[in-house]
Amino acid sequence: MKIDVNLVPTSTEVWGYKNKTIVVIDVLRASSTIITALEFGARNIVPVLSPDEAVGLKTRYDSEDVLLGGERGGLKIQGFDLGNSPLEYTNDVVNGKTIVFTTTNGTKAIRSANGAETLLISAYINLAATAKKVVELGNDTLIICAGRQGSFSLEDAACAGTLCATIGRLISIEETDSAKATRMIAASYASPLDVFTASEHGQHLLSLGFKEDLEYAANVNSCDTVPFFIGGHLVLER
Amino acid sequence: MKIDVNLVPTSTEVWGYKNKTIVVIDVLRASSTIITALEFGARNIVPVLSPDEAVGLKTRYDSEDVLLGGERGGLKIQGFDLGNSPLEYTNDVVNGKTIVFTTTNGTKAIRSANGAETLLISAYINLAATAKKVVELGNDTLIICAGRQGSFSLEDAACAGTLCATIGRLISIEETDSAKATRMIAASYASPLDVFTASEHGQHLLSLGFKEDLEYAANVNSCDTVPFFIGGHLVLER
Repeated sequence: MKIDVNLVPTSTEVWGYKNKTIVVIDVLRASSTIITALEFGARNIVPVLSPDEAVGLKTRYDSEDVLLGGERGGLKIQGFDLGNSPLEYTNDVVNGKTIVFTTTNGTKAIRSANGAETLLISAYINLAATAKKVVELGNDTLIICAGRQGSFSLEDAACAGTLCATIGRLISIEETDSAKATRMIAASYASPLDVFTASEHGQHLLSLGFKEDLEYAANVNSCDTVPFFIGGHLVLER
Repeated sequence: MKIDVNLVPTSTEVWGYKNKTIVVIDVLRASSTIITALEFGARNIVPVLSPDEAVGLKTRYDSEDVLLGGERGGLKIQGFDLGNSPLEYTNDVVNGKTIVFTTTNGTKAIRSANGAETLLISAYINLAATAKKVVELGNDTLIICAGRQGSFSLEDAACAGTLCATIGRLISIEETDSAKATRMIAASYASPLDVFTASEHGQHLLSLGFKEDLEYAANVNSCDTVPFFIGGHLVLER
């Protein structure tokens, strides 16, 4: 299996997605939040690009079972039900709900890979489950790091590298330069929390008071579920 | 001093170049070749985007002191005087000459940073000289990795990381996520030759028979010169 990593989302990545598994990582915090919400019983999550699009969609749904979630500048959007902290997405809040979700980087990365046949969401909290699923699917795999406003982010690259290493312990893989580089980055830090503390976005979230989110997102393999993006919705595979 | 690294050239990087030092790295092989040619007495080097542009420019110069150099697919372009092997650019060949030069990635990265006030060329062979010059200039610095056809290349990132580390031994620096990541990548390999052997482009050049080029490009600090891009020409600072 060939493993490639896009260190930043690119506009060309919608090409060549046939027979490929795409994995999107936005470890702080969109992918950690998406995994958590579905693990705690959310019916599905609809990633959208803007708060306006989210509000418009909720109006069209016209149902109490629809919640608005997401962030801008790391903070909950005015009028939204939920922010982008995974700790908000508890069972009593999200069970059975549809969540219309918009974040600065994560939902954009998912939507940019819209043409993918198979798109999974990964973070530290579901690494082993993702690796197992990637191996089951058996296709060449492209990991897309959501990054930060079009730029590289240390935590997504390090998480991608740990995912590469985890897949590489299950089967024989052929890595591109970028996949190798992410493994080197991952191996340079003792723990995900060390990565978060060293990263610009981790520092930003700490300055906003989200220390507990970082600790939660650093819990490797605390979740056993892998969200799939199917027909515009993020769902757990049934 | 703030140090940032673009792991791939981006179309937006011509913005915000005021009071910034830009360093372009295409270690295999354009920047190694440019440094070598100027060290061995070339008058200047004119980076152009295509073989046609190179031929047109030579016709306009209409002088025996103009040579055409560069590669496509790693090999010398038909009708050109020189390829992209630094070993071809000896004193007896290049002394006093203008070299019109086009390569797949390196000259494109240089031209994309055309708006920069201060643009230097770096590779392993002139790392210490580059670091010294960056410190003298004293501006925030952006290192642009030329990469490979728009994608990440291990050898440029590793070289950028060693440059960051070298600058960091001279003065106090503040690194972005990507600068940190390149330092981690660099520290994961015992030598530049190990990086080249692990990299896709290094493997490609080995398959074309350019082993000696790799050995030459791995000679850290064998050159003491730093090319500047001034008025469309690469020259040594006088």
